[in-house]
Amino acid sequence: MSRPDITRTPLPASSKIHLTHPQHADIRVPVREIALSNGDRVRLYDTSGPYTDPGADLDVTRGLPAIRSPWLDSRADTQLYAGRVVQPVDDGGQTLSGFFNPALQRQPRRANSGANVSQLHYARRGIITPEMEYIALRENNSCRSDRSMPESAERQRRLAGNPQGARIPSLITPEFVRREVAEGRAIIPANINHPELEPMIIGRNFLVKVNANIGNSALGSSIGEEVDKLVWAIRWGADTVMDLSTGKNIHSTRDHILRNSPVPIGTVPLYQALEKVGGIAEDLSWDIFRDTLIEQAEQGVDYFTIHAGLRLPFVPMTAERVTGIVSRGGSIMAKWCIAHHQESFLYTHFEDICDIMKAYDVSFSLGDGLRPGCLADANDEAQFAELKTLGELTKIAWQHDVQTMIEGPGHVPMHLIQENMDKQLEYCDEAPFYTLGPLTTDIAPGYDHITSGIGAAMIGWFGCAMLCYVTPKEHLGLPDRDDVKAGLIAYKIAAHAADVAKGHPQARTHDDLLSQARFEFRWEDQFNLGLDPDTARDYHDETLPKDSAKVAHFCSMCGPKFCSMQISQEVRDYAREDQAREDQAREDSAREGMKKKSEEFRELGSKLYVQEVN
Amino acid sequence: MSRPDITRTPLPASSKIHLTHPQHADIRVPVREIALSNGDRVRLYDTSGPYTDPGADLDVTRGLPAIRSPWLDSRADTQLYAGRVVQPVDDGGQTLSGFFNPALQRQPRRANSGANVSQLHYARRGIITPEMEYIALRENNSCRSDRSMPESAERQRRLAGNPQGARIPSLITPEFVRREVAEGRAIIPANINHPELEPMIIGRNFLVKVNANIGNSALGSSIGEEVDKLVWAIRWGADTVMDLSTGKNIHSTRDHILRNSPVPIGTVPLYQALEKVGGIAEDLSWDIFRDTLIEQAEQGVDYFTIHAGLRLPFVPMTAERVTGIVSRGGSIMAKWCIAHHQESFLYTHFEDICDIMKAYDVSFSLGDGLRPGCLADANDEAQFAELKTLGELTKIAWQHDVQTMIEGPGHVPMHLIQENMDKQLEYCDEAPFYTLGPLTTDIAPGYDHITSGIGAAMIGWFGCAMLCYVTPKEHLGLPDRDDVKAGLIAYKIAAHAADVAKGHPQARTHDDLLSQARFEFRWEDQFNLGLDPDTARDYHDETLPKDSAKVAHFCSMCGPKFCSMQISQEVRDYAREDQAREDQAREDSAREGMKKKSEEFRELGSKLYVQEVN
Repeated sequence: MSRPDITRTPLPASSKIHLTHPQHADIRVPVREIALSNGDRVRLYDTSGPYTDPGADLDVTRGLPAIRSPWLDSRADTQLYAGRVVQPVDDGGQTLSGFFNPALQRQPRRANSGANVSQLHYARRGIITPEMEYIALRENNSCRSDRSMPESAERQRRLAGNPQGARIPSLITPEFVRREVAEGRAIIPANINHPELEPMIIGRNFLVKVNANIGNSALGSSIGEEVDKLVWAIRWGADTVMDLSTGKNIHSTRDHILRNSPVPIGTVPLYQALEKVGGIAEDLSWDIFRDTLIEQAEQGVDYFTIHAGLRLPFVPMTAERVTGIVSRGGSIMAKWCIAHHQESFLYTHFEDICDIMKAYDVSFSLGDGLRPGCLADANDEAQFAELKTLGELTKIAWQHDVQTMIEGPGHVPMHLIQENMDKQLEYCDEAPFYTLGPLTTDIAPGYDHITSGIGAAMIGWFGCAMLCYVTPKEHLGLPDRDDVKAGLIAYKIAAHAADVAKGHPQARTHDDLLSQARFEFRWEDQFNLGLDPDTARDYHDETLPKDSAKVAHFCSMCGPKFCSMQISQEVRDYAREDQAREDQAREDSAREGMKKKSEEFRELGSKLYVQEVN
Repeated sequence: MSRPDITRTPLPASSKIHLTHPQHADIRVPVREIALSNGDRVRLYDTSGPYTDPGADLDVTRGLPAIRSPWLDSRADTQLYAGRVVQPVDDGGQTLSGFFNPALQRQPRRANSGANVSQLHYARRGIITPEMEYIALRENNSCRSDRSMPESAERQRRLAGNPQGARIPSLITPEFVRREVAEGRAIIPANINHPELEPMIIGRNFLVKVNANIGNSALGSSIGEEVDKLVWAIRWGADTVMDLSTGKNIHSTRDHILRNSPVPIGTVPLYQALEKVGGIAEDLSWDIFRDTLIEQAEQGVDYFTIHAGLRLPFVPMTAERVTGIVSRGGSIMAKWCIAHHQESFLYTHFEDICDIMKAYDVSFSLGDGLRPGCLADANDEAQFAELKTLGELTKIAWQHDVQTMIEGPGHVPMHLIQENMDKQLEYCDEAPFYTLGPLTTDIAPGYDHITSGIGAAMIGWFGCAMLCYVTPKEHLGLPDRDDVKAGLIAYKIAAHAADVAKGHPQARTHDDLLSQARFEFRWEDQFNLGLDPDTARDYHDETLPKDSAKVAHFCSMCGPKFCSMQISQEVRDYAREDQAREDQAREDSAREGMKKKSEEFRELGSKLYVQEVN
């Protein structure tokens, strides 16, 4: 394939720096450092990988450096092996796809016989892995500024947040990371065959994360486009990316995505399995599915959506729904179950799946095949029957020390969102929740990043660990670059609003830095601290394009005479004078009081004197 | 002025029809009727005025028909009078503005001496006005379909909504409207000098409303642009519009907006008053302000934002804020108070203002001059001190039978939103709340329609009666047409999501109709029922532009093989068969049981027989 055009410029005024670990030289956590016009330097959590580092020598036809390899080697519990032979059917063709790239092939690694290489397994044995060290450093530095900003006790109290049951410590230690993983409350999606990964964590006692879906379908997009979308998605903050490709070239597309991805990659293996049987759901079998799991695990997929909670008896519960089964994976499995009048092979073979997951450290994302596709179907019997089953499967996965998160809806009106979170926490013992939206109304096709951004912010606050973005194209078509960005910005807003509401110790720092810049008319800083500096600058320039306007103490909204921010500065001076006046008055009155007292005393004294004389 | 280009086409597949009143021939409530491809006709609440009626003969240089005039005449409590003479200073010039249009001048009307013509005054005397009749009809027909959709008791229960203290009846009667107004829980902004108005109501026991701000500033836009923005804003659902013009031509711009507006128009009279004193806040006086109130009341402004709650002692409370005072009106008044070291003339003359309001039925929108401009300042002492004062002023306004709503923030993290609503209800005795957003994070300039849409949906659910939109240009520049639309769609989403969550009896009907269309692959219906049919259609056509795709039973997201909706149809068939199988089995087992029973009986009978014989 030709080299796709990918975006390699850093964000404005930004440079990539690395936080280092005192004990581990090979732990280097990337952060984005923004140089502000007032001399401050702000460091932000950075998902964009080496692409925003102009110094990095990258070639997407060869892949990223394998930074995790030394850690994997030093654990000495895995082996390189021949692996499954790539077949034409993996790309859906009679011959191997023209997109297949030999330079992206790696010898796969798996656990030694009998070994379990999951982060959960290590965590439960008390081992703090380099991945955990990396994450602690990363989570502790989501927003730092060179200039400390002491905050009044009153403001701290007022804005403390309502964690809704989350317990986020002021300092994330590696041991805290280990414990959260050990207790199943967080996962570190990190396939041993994805050594290019910059580790991250998903759990409600950490920053709320965002996933972006990309992937070609039978009707659109090319591999180049998908790699570009990956790089574009992480530029705008995607913490993980799901490759939901269907149609042809699935295997080769995934090669390109995985080898070039610094973030965890998730897939729905069922989509590829279905391609392998020519799209006939009834022809699916455990053998074909198992083969697909191994194929993808060897490539390095970090988490699999497995719709194992959709059981045969739940299928008829959806018959009276307004929109039936809307999950692709769910409807495929429902069709299979009906055709065979048998329990789903994902359910009956669940422990076999666990055995594969733990040999590569693939995490479960237990799929909600029965999620509601419209408000009318929200929180119904079918949905919660499946969720309960996902809870049972979580316990089985945990018996195998396989990391597990749970997928959630979907379309849910605001007043039913909390129940989703509560039931998930109860049924699934605090395994991380990972929801699509939810969309709070069905009436705005073209704007479902907004209908769902509302629900996402709310459920993030209530305890959801990762939010799966929805783009403006939802229900209408495949997202392009602009849609991917629009979806991501909406979801970074939702995730951040949730972090703030939960009282995450660093979240509001970012808001304060931006608001200070706004108050001080530092326009460039205001743009550069924003989630999308380019758009903010463009919007500003539409009315006031001159460079001088960037230092002007007003904007086009109010014009020079009306600027409230400018007037506020005068209020400060006044308050200071007012305070001074008050202090003076108090001093005067104190002086006056003393004078009066001394007069009184003199009077009294004279009386006393008189008395005494008497 | 030349005739501005305004949008006169109806929305796709839509026509304007009018609901008629059995007793009042001149009450004709406009609704938008959408013809669906399945023969259904759906009628929706319609704010767009006659502009979307191709049969209406309109000329924006002459204004809309005065539909309320007969009602005003028949009340016989007002008189036409000479009115204030329009002066060059009203348009900020030495001579009358070139934009001044004699054809838009109307002789003003005011209450007869000693009379009070507010809807609140009528309501308290038990009078149901034509405006109230109109509103009852309008609110009861926010979403109706020709095909009734019986809903299962289970679904009704599951989706009943959580009204959070609202009490929305299943049928809005004119008497209910009257009582809500009488008790101050709702207002009908309807200046007697705005006879072009299609009456609407703002209160938490009605549909949540949305306001759009337009208006030129010293740095941008023309009168033509503003009239176009008005028509554009109501096309996309603005229930009221605020003209926040500053700079030159304020009076003439307002003439054009009012005479062409079927929705209530609000203003901040302080902006014009400030223009009259050359932009020097210290030079403001009660006389100039009073003159401006009368000028605007005579023109027909339906509600005034009055920042009377910002008292001198509250000003120093803002000194330690991160962004001080961000309300334009608030900062102007703060500056005046400081300069004069005096209590605000808006506060000291509050009853004089009430006297003007009731002579024209202008409603108060009591301004929150101390609203927080960033998360760090949310819910602070200054904000709530002002809110408490607004509550005291509400009681005074009510003593004068002046309709009153209360403005609210601003920038508020999610976990502090409920406190805003609770305190407002408590301090202001359930007077309608009207909030700007709130924005749930400060970090996304360029996307504040989304940061604030989240907060708006939540506070709408909690009981806020009207949501003031925020456009993507907030903090950056003046909104253009695209921004106005983007802001409105985001806020219609928020308002509707709130209506659904509150359990408004017709709100979810709209979602159900759209979702049914989606499930049945009625693409055109899906677009046309959406808040923005044009964008939905464009997005769909980007991938599947052919007309045949509009009837295709799949979309580009999944392609033909994967369509989950199609599979769901099969599930229904299965469930029906499953049910039939079960019924058959039950029947079989019943027959078997009967057979067994009869055998048993025969056995028993024979025994009995034997016994008897014995």
